[in-house]
Parts: sequence; C-alpha cells; structure tokens
Amino acid sequence: MKNSAILLVSCPDAKGEVASIADFVYRHGGNILHADEHADQESGLFLMRVEFDPKDFDIDLSAVDPTQFNPAQAVHPGSARTGLSEFAKHFDPIAEKFQMTWRLAVSSHRQRMIIFVSKYDHCLVDLLYRHQSGELACDIPLIISNHPDNQPIADFYKIPYAVVSVRKDNKRDSEARIQSLIDQHRPDFLVLARYMQILSNEFVNRYPQRIINIHHGLLPAFIGARPYHRAFERGVKLIGATSHYVTEVLDDGPIIEQDVVRVSHRDTVEDLIRKGRDLEKMVLSRAVRWHIENRILLYGNKTVVF
Amino acid sequence: MKNSAILLVSCPDAKGEVASIADFVYRHGGNILHADEHADQESGLFLMRVEFDPKDFDIDLSAVDPTQFNPAQAVHPGSARTGLSEFAKHFDPIAEKFQMTWRLAVSSHRQRMIIFVSKYDHCLVDLLYRHQSGELACDIPLIISNHPDNQPIADFYKIPYAVVSVRKDNKRDSEARIQSLIDQHRPDFLVLARYMQILSNEFVNRYPQRIINIHHGLLPAFIGARPYHRAFERGVKLIGATSHYVTEVLDDGPIIEQDVVRVSHRDTVEDLIRKGRDLEKMVLSRAVRWHIENRILLYGNKTVVF
Amino acid sequence: MKNSAILLVSCPDAKGEVASIADFVYRHGGNILHADEHADQESGLFLMRVEFDPKDFDIDLSAVDPTQFNPAQAVHPGSARTGLSEFAKHFDPIAEKFQMTWRLAVSSHRQRMIIFVSKYDHCLVDLLYRHQSGELACDIPLIISNHPDNQPIADFYKIPYAVVSVRKDNKRDSEARIQSLIDQHRPDFLVLARYMQILSNEFVNRYPQRIINIHHGLLPAFIGARPYHRAFERGVKLIGATSHYVTEVLDDGPIIEQDVVRVSHRDTVEDLIRKGRDLEKMVLSRAVRWHIENRILLYGNKTVVF
Amino acid sequence: MKNSAILLVSCPDAKGEVASIADFVYRHGGNILHADEHADQESGLFLMRVEFDPKDFDIDLSAVDPTQFNPAQAVHPGSARTGLSEFAKHFDPIAEKFQMTWRLAVSSHRQRMIIFVSKYDHCLVDLLYRHQSGELACDIPLIISNHPDNQPIADFYKIPYAVVSVRKDNKRDSEARIQSLIDQHRPDFLVLARYMQILSNEFVNRYPQRIINIHHGLLPAFIGARPYHRAFERGVKLIGATSHYVTEVLDDGPIIEQDVVRVSHRDTVEDLIRKGRDLEKMVLSRAVRWHIENRILLYGNKTVVF
Repeated sequence: MKNSAILLVSCPDAKGEVASIADFVYRHGGNILHADEHADQESGLFLMRVEFDPKDFDIDLSAVDPTQFNPAQAVHPGSARTGLSEFAKHFDPIAEKFQMTWRLAVSSHRQRMIIFVSKYDHCLVDLLYRHQSGELACDIPLIISNHPDNQPIADFYKIPYAVVSVRKDNKRDSEARIQSLIDQHRPDFLVLARYMQILSNEFVNRYPQRIINIHHGLLPAFIGARPYHRAFERGVKLIGATSHYVTEVLDDGPIIEQDVVRVSHRDTVEDLIRKGRDLEKMVLSRAVRWHIENRILLYGNKTVVF
Repeated sequence: MKNSAILLVSCPDAKGEVASIADFVYRHGGNILHADEHADQESGLFLMRVEFDPKDFDIDLSAVDPTQFNPAQAVHPGSARTGLSEFAKHFDPIAEKFQMTWRLAVSSHRQRMIIFVSKYDHCLVDLLYRHQSGELACDIPLIISNHPDNQPIADFYKIPYAVVSVRKDNKRDSEARIQSLIDQHRPDFLVLARYMQILSNEFVNRYPQRIINIHHGLLPAFIGARPYHRAFERGVKLIGATSHYVTEVLDDGPIIEQDVVRVSHRDTVEDLIRKGRDLEKMVLSRAVRWHIENRILLYGNKTVVF
Repeated sequence: MKNSAILLVSCPDAKGEVASIADFVYRHGGNILHADEHADQESGLFLMRVEFDPKDFDIDLSAVDPTQFNPAQAVHPGSARTGLSEFAKHFDPIAEKFQMTWRLAVSSHRQRMIIFVSKYDHCLVDLLYRHQSGELACDIPLIISNHPDNQPIADFYKIPYAVVSVRKDNKRDSEARIQSLIDQHRPDFLVLARYMQILSNEFVNRYPQRIINIHHGLLPAFIGARPYHRAFERGVKLIGATSHYVTEVLDDGPIIEQDVVRVSHRDTVEDLIRKGRDLEKMVLSRAVRWHIENRILLYGNKTVVF
Repeated sequence: MKNSAILLVSCPDAKGEVASIADFVYRHGGNILHADEHADQESGLFLMRVEFDPKDFDIDLSAVDPTQFNPAQAVHPGSARTGLSEFAKHFDPIAEKFQMTWRLAVSSHRQRMIIFVSKYDHCLVDLLYRHQSGELACDIPLIISNHPDNQPIADFYKIPYAVVSVRKDNKRDSEARIQSLIDQHRPDFLVLARYMQILSNEFVNRYPQRIINIHHGLLPAFIGARPYHRAFERGVKLIGATSHYVTEVLDDGPIIEQDVVRVSHRDTVEDLIRKGRDLEKMVLSRAVRWHIENRILLYGNKTVVF
C-alpha cells in the first residue's frame, strides 16, 4: 500500500475552508490523492477528509503517533498532542481561524486493534483471516475473551489470546484486568466481535469512537437480546446487522454500517442465525476497515463514512 | 392468462395431507400447475396452496363467487358459502378429517380492489399504471380519497373517484360514508396507498386480511409517524418500506413484503423521502399482486407467501 | 431547490489542482456546497466536481447558457462559448496551467430533455411522473415517437408529442425530420426510453455524452436484441438493466448505472420482462437525474458519477 | 439435524404425478416435511422434490448408498443401483408409468466432498470454516491442490491435503494422479474452490452435475480469464460471481447461484478483487450447501433450486 497522510477536520461551515486546507497541503508539498467533504446544512457543520501523498511534504510527520490511546486528545488532538507538534504548529492558524477539530493520521503507522470475543467465533475467524490476507492493515496485539474456546484459532494466526472470565460476582475485577491488558498493549481501538458481556459506562466513556460493536439486528429495530428470535416472531421479510460505535446507551451509538438479507417462511430461527452470521461478518469487517482507513467522522450521534 | 383454480388450505400438521389434496384434485380431473406447502414445525401447522387447471375438472366451479366480501366466510369459508356448495360438498370429507380451514379461488374471477389515497400520489399512480398494463389482474371499481387532488389521474385511467373528506369532527360520518361506498361497490379487498387517515378498529375488524397498507419504514423499526425523519435522525444506513395487512394495532399486522435502499450522509431527509417513494411503490405493488394471485396465507401474525 | 453553480473539470493529475480550484471559487466569493474529486492512478487523470453557492460570487454567471446544444463546445466549452466569456476570462489562467477541460453549469438553468419512445411505455410514464412530481428538475419540450400510441399520456402531462414514423425505406428522411425537431426545440440532451430504432452513427456522433439509453440487460452480457429471452435460456439467477451514453458501437457506450433483480425457475420469460420493467425505470431515471444534476464525468469509455 | 429422505423426480408433465408420489410416500408411512414441484410449461417437464420423515417408513432405506460415485447411475439411478433395490422395487411401477428419472437420498448419509484449490485460499478457508461450524453437513475426505501453500489451514481443520503439481508437460499424469485419489476417496462430488487448472473433457464428462465451480464474473459476462480486470476496463457498476456445474464448455455449465456487489470509480482493480472474494465465498458456499441438501435439479442447461 502507498504511504499516505490523512487529515480529518470538522468545524462550523464557513467560506474558504476547502481552499484553506487544500492550499495548506499544496504549499507544504503534499499531493492530494483523495478529498471528500460534507457540509451538513441542518447542523451547519463542515466535515472534510483529505488524503495526501507525504513524499515531498516539508513538515516532519515522523513524530505522529496515533498509538497513544488518549481519547481526550483524540477529540481535540491538535495542540495537546506533543507528537503532532510540528504539524500542529503549522496547521494551528487555520484550525483556530475556522474553529476546527482535527486529527492527522499516517498510513505508515499501523493501528493496533484488540478483539473481544465470547464463544461465537464467526466474526473473530473472519477478522483474523482478513487481517492475515492483508485486507485489514492493522496490528492485532491481543484477543480478549471470557472463554478459552477460541484459543486454537488465535494460535493458528499467532495472535496472543487472554482469557478474562466474567461472572456476576467479579465484574469489577474482570474489567480491571481488561483495563490492565489494554494499558499494557496500547491499542488504538477495540472491536467487540460478538462479545456477550456488557462493559461499564465508565469503561465505555474512556474510549469514545474507539469501540466498534456488531449488533445482530437492523437497529433501531430489535435492540437488546435475541434479535433473530424476535425477528422470527414478528415475521419480518428481511433481517439485518448493524455495526456501531459503543456508547453508554445500549445499541444506541453512531451507526457505521448496516446490511440485510432476505428471509422467508421457509427459514427457521436457525436459518436466520446462519444467514445472520454472514451479515455480521461482512458488516463488522467493513466497519473495521473504514475505521482503520480513517474514513469515519462523527457528527452528533451519526457517522459520515468518506 | 391461463385459467386456473387455487385451493388454499391451513390445518394442524398430519400425515397424508398432501396426498389427500393432490389425490382429490387428480380424481376430479384437475391438472396441478403449481403446488406449494409449508409445515411450520414450531406451531405444528400445515399450509398448502394448490393451483390447478380446471379445464377437465368434473366439479362445477361456476358458482364460486369470491366477490362477496364476507370476512367471516373468508376465514372459514368452507361450508358457509353457498356459492361454493358443489365444491364444498365434495371437499368437505377431507376438510373435516384434517380440520382444514380452506378457501377456493378461480382466476377467471377478477378480484375487486378499492384504493384509498390522500395527497401523496406515487403509490396510486403506480398501481393504476400496473393495473392498466395488465400487471395487476383485478378490477378497480373505485378510488376513495379525503382530498380531491388525485381526481385527474383517476380520470385519465377512467376509474371512479370519490372524495370523502375527513375532519376531526366528522370521523364517524366519514367512515359511514366510506362503508356505504364499500357496500355499494363490493370490493374483495382494500388498499391503503398512503392513506393518511386512521380507520376505526370496528371498521378494520370487519375486513381481516383484506386491507393492505404500505408503511414507509422497515417495521418494526419506526412505527408511527414521520419514519423517514426519524431514520434520518438516527443516522441509519438503510431505509425501508413494509407492506402489511391492517389490524387493530398500528403498524403491527402481518408483514407481506419489505425492501430497503442504501442511504448515506449525502442524503437529506428529502432524498430519503424520494428514495422511499420508489421503495413504497415496489413493495406495495408486490403485496397487491401476491394478494390478487391468492399467494398469501396467514398463520399467527405472520404470512406465508407461496 | 437552492441555486447553485457546478464546475466540472478533467485534466492530467498534478499537484495543486484542488487548491487552485477551491481558491478560485473562494477568492470570487463562492461558498463550496459539495466538492468531489477523483484521481485515476492508472490513467493519470484528475476529475473534479465543485458545487458552490453563487449568491455572492463576483463573476457574472447570467450569460451561462447551457441550452445551446453544441457538442464541440460541450467538450471544450471554455474559450469557445461566448456565453461563458466572463467566467472563462477569469478561469482560463488556471485551466491553461493545468490543461483542464472544463464545463460550468448553473442550476437555475433548467436543462431541456427530449424523450424518444416506441410502443413500450413504462419508462416514458415513469419519467413523466417523476418530472411532474419535481424529481427531475428539467424541461421536456418534446416527446418523439415512431408510433402514435403514447400520445394520451403525453397529453395528460401536457408535453408535445411528435410522431416520426420509421420504415426501412424512409430511415434517412425520418432522421432528417428528427434532426429538424431537435434544431427547433434545442434540447440539452436526449433520452431513449425504450426507443426501438437504431440511430445513425452520423446522428449519434453529433451528441457525444448527450444521448442516454436504457438497455434491458446487464451489459456487457446480452448485448443486442431480446436480452430477457436470452437470459431466460441461459438460466441466469439475476437479470439486470444498464443505462449508458450512446456511442457508435451498439450497447458499448460508457455505463452510467446498472441494477439487478433476482429470478428463479418459477419466473417465465414474461415474469423476467415484468421484473425488468421496474429495473429499467429505476436505472434510467437515476441516470437521467444524475445527468441533469451534472454529476457525470467521462474518462475513456467509463463514467465517474459524483 | 432431523433425519429425512429426499426423493428427486423429473419426467414429462402429466396429470396425477403429485398425487401418485404423495400417495406413495403416505401409503408407506412417510410424513412429508417439504414438497416442491415445478412444471416447466415450455419444455413440458415436471420436476419434484419431496422430503419426508422416514421414521415410520415401511421400506428399508438402509441400503441407500449415495457415496457410490457412478454418474451413469446418478442420472438414471432407479433400477441400476442395487443399493436402492428395496425402494426401487416399490417405486418402479410409478416411475415407469410416468417415465420418471429419479434419485433418492437420505440425510443420514453424509456426502463426501473433495475440494480442489490453487493458491487463492479465501473460498477454501470459507468452506472449511462452514464445514467445521456445522453449516455444511458433509464429510471432506481430501483437499487436492497444485500448490503446497494451503497445507497449514488444512492441517488446522485436520483435513488431508494432497499436492498434485500440474505443469504443461505433465497434465496427463497429473490428472491420472487426481483420478487415483478420487477412486481411493470415493467422493460424491467435487468443488473447484478457485482451482486454476483446466480439467480435461474426459475427466469432466465422468462427473456430470458432480463438479461445482466458482467463476469470478457474472456469467455469461466475462467468460474466461481475468474477469475483474475486464469488468474494471468496461466500467461496470456491479460485479458478480457465479457458481455452476462444470461441463465441457468453459464457464457454460448450468448456473446454480449468482450474486453481485456495487462498485464505483473509487474502486481499483484491487478493490474489485477484494469485494469479489466475499461474493465468491457466499455464492460458492450457497451452491455447495444446496447440492448437499439435494435441492438442485437439472433440466436442459439450467437448474431448479428447490
């Protein structure tokens, strides 16, 4: 893959923003590979993603270090992140003029993803295969599970696998153990690949727009448990899956991707579950890839996928 | 279109049902064109649709008169409908043995459909065009609307158009007027083609599995008003439409057909409404065609579409 | 709809193009509403579409007159079109520096579309309805047909309808008559809505990227006649439709849009034709809308739809 | 999974066929679980699939041995297969009366599938995972490859893996070696999971309706090599994959399943290949599952999938 730098910007809509950003990249020797922008008329918000070739870029990007998992900095990473100081020093005048929240990523840095899984293995197996085949350009320092069952596939792909059992009476301890593993492996983001445990609000709030979940229903329909059973009972003609960022409210976070498949009276609940597995794999893997490629911007409780 | 007779059966699952029905048709000289059956393991229900060529059938079917809009007979039409007496006389031994609820339709009889519409005209225009082009093999004795706006397109297709205005203070009178129009035009079923008025439970209960509605959301998501606006606010990546039979509970009747279309951050609410119009037309017209072709059987609150 | 100006650009890929264009719009007081660009790595081509609010734009755009159907100017409209002189005068330095081919459109100008149709009326009826309902923001000065059959629907929508019969022995005369109607009604583009006559190469070459056709097959499969029959014979599980710009080579022009629908052994050729009608309507109407909104750019024999 | 017996029948269309088959199953104590039939009006062909519960069936089915890979018997398996003699003895009068070609399968017998693969591993990995998770109720006695690369994943799933290298100068020997492996492992059918070698006509003809291939194009478009590259060059808006039975003519056998995915100008050839991998996995695995479930009947060069 070609080396590239990606600048993500969101700010109040105003004249001259595209010009200022494009001119900045050009003045410093960058060649724009892709540029996407969206002006949300209702909210008056401007969002932009610029991917440029940094080969001749005259600002040193080597210190850019997105492996630091600091969500406070992630939201307003500009001035705060010392690693970005060179770029930030140059870009700050524009950022301040337009009240921009921005983030810079370089593709040469491979993001670090920790996968959470329980017993259902289809999403895990799918992510590991895509990772190995080069579809997901990230590193996987660790898999965390509340069951030992999926150790063999982790071993096959040579990914460390930690079992953190969760019982009603040890939830607090389990999460502390998980937190310690995260602190140790410094992931950029977490993926819940059919992880069947609820994470505390405290934990979730520590990683805004950093935890990707797959829900086996077409949200906002069938929030919560046993969505395929409930879809079967309602007699729907399509079932769906939804990948979203996790927030405090169950299944309510910003939706990244959704897809559906047709079902009929010939399909039992087991058929729905089987068809759903393919949906879940596809939908989750797309969301993960877009996240890795820094394509997703939030506004309100919604996503823009550039 | 070829002439055909369609026998619809539902009963508790038991051995010998397919054989008994197929043998009955064969013994009386009918040639089976299509046969579909479904045994629902969970509920222990058996459902079957047999379409046969009645050319050499030795039971007189000429008295079969499904234009009678008698819902009580529609549900258990067997012995009650005098028009079916010849067929019923012969089929009743089988029906009694297996506790069958059944219905017979002949394609030579064109069903009568009354369309209800308000101001939004896309579903109406679509149904009228499909009707005229031969896609919907039914008669349309009347269009009923609470607004005069769609009179011109009704005139173009030479379909009578009755305006029954509905205000808060005349709901009861309006429904009486509608009832009188129905009694006069004797439809087999009613289609709510984006009709924006709520019909009373009393009215709805008079026509079980006889009123087809189109809802502009992917039920059970976005029940009720303004589904596209709520889909937009939730940031979904797919919007849908649902056609269902109307029951007492709002947007809760048996689902006949659903479909979706992809949307993105580039789509405004207006774009959702525009894309949704195409969905609604497609989904409603399929449901209407299947109803006309006697393909839909109910079990519980679900449909089988053979 | 909001007033907007759309600048379409294609040129060899080079540094600074996005910046130059964005800066140009900004310097002259335009507010960018949408910007899309694509750099085709293989061909080294850069394509861009910028939509901006011209309210405070300080260059007079009132003379922009895209109703002139001059294909030579359409391809390199810059300096040649006197109507664009004010804008061109200012933009030419940038255009020359980057060897840009460009075109400017203003949404306040409604494009003029002539529809060609034969006997099959589904695409015509669909386009006329969408036009009347405001989905297609264009004018329709004329419908041309080789049959009188569709006069009534044209009358209903109050669109002039000219019958130009085509027989083997009068092809040249017919085309001359068509040319004369075009010269008289000055359309911006032509739509072949299941027009069953072949237009001469001479005619086609006069309107590059100005004639939109709908083919009832998923090109490049089933080029030529009776695609549904051939799809049926081959036993495909999906049928498709393709909208493309017309070129000299049959069904070989740049593809604008395609879509498919699932078929099975239960579908006869007549069912394929019926299902195909919905496909054709959807696919053609999308292509026409995108053309009207100036979203389509050509490169080689392919399209970019921004 | 429930035990079941499946009777597949094809014959000239005639009155009384459904009744005769259903009555036969009933008389012998079988309970029909699913029945599907199709009368192809054009060819005058009748096709039927009856799945019944053999628990109380009074004909001994234990000798039914579909593992014998004898294609001549597969086509007219009735009287020829000694293993079927008990059933055949009873069913032959009906079969002869209606000139039926028929086949009986029992779900208790797990079919044996040999997978052929080259270097691309996505379809192999997918099939092995689905097999292990219980989605594909068959045995896999062997994987055959012309490269050693995929040995590790075969080892992980504990499936024997044979490397049969194929060079220009040893094609005949390679095929003899493959034939010997087949004779030894007695598969019911073969799956070409992106196997990049051409099998001889002689070999192919030995296994009619027994070799399933996946082609990475939407047949009949893009027959032959490099379909994604050619799709990219043509500028299509949808790419597809096709699973079909292999016949003598390249990519011309009866189509079992097809599916598509949307592409745009933003997709490079590499993106098409990536998106195509998911298509290929889905389409091939569906075809394999239907084959295993004895759902596929041939007529002419087409399939019915019940």
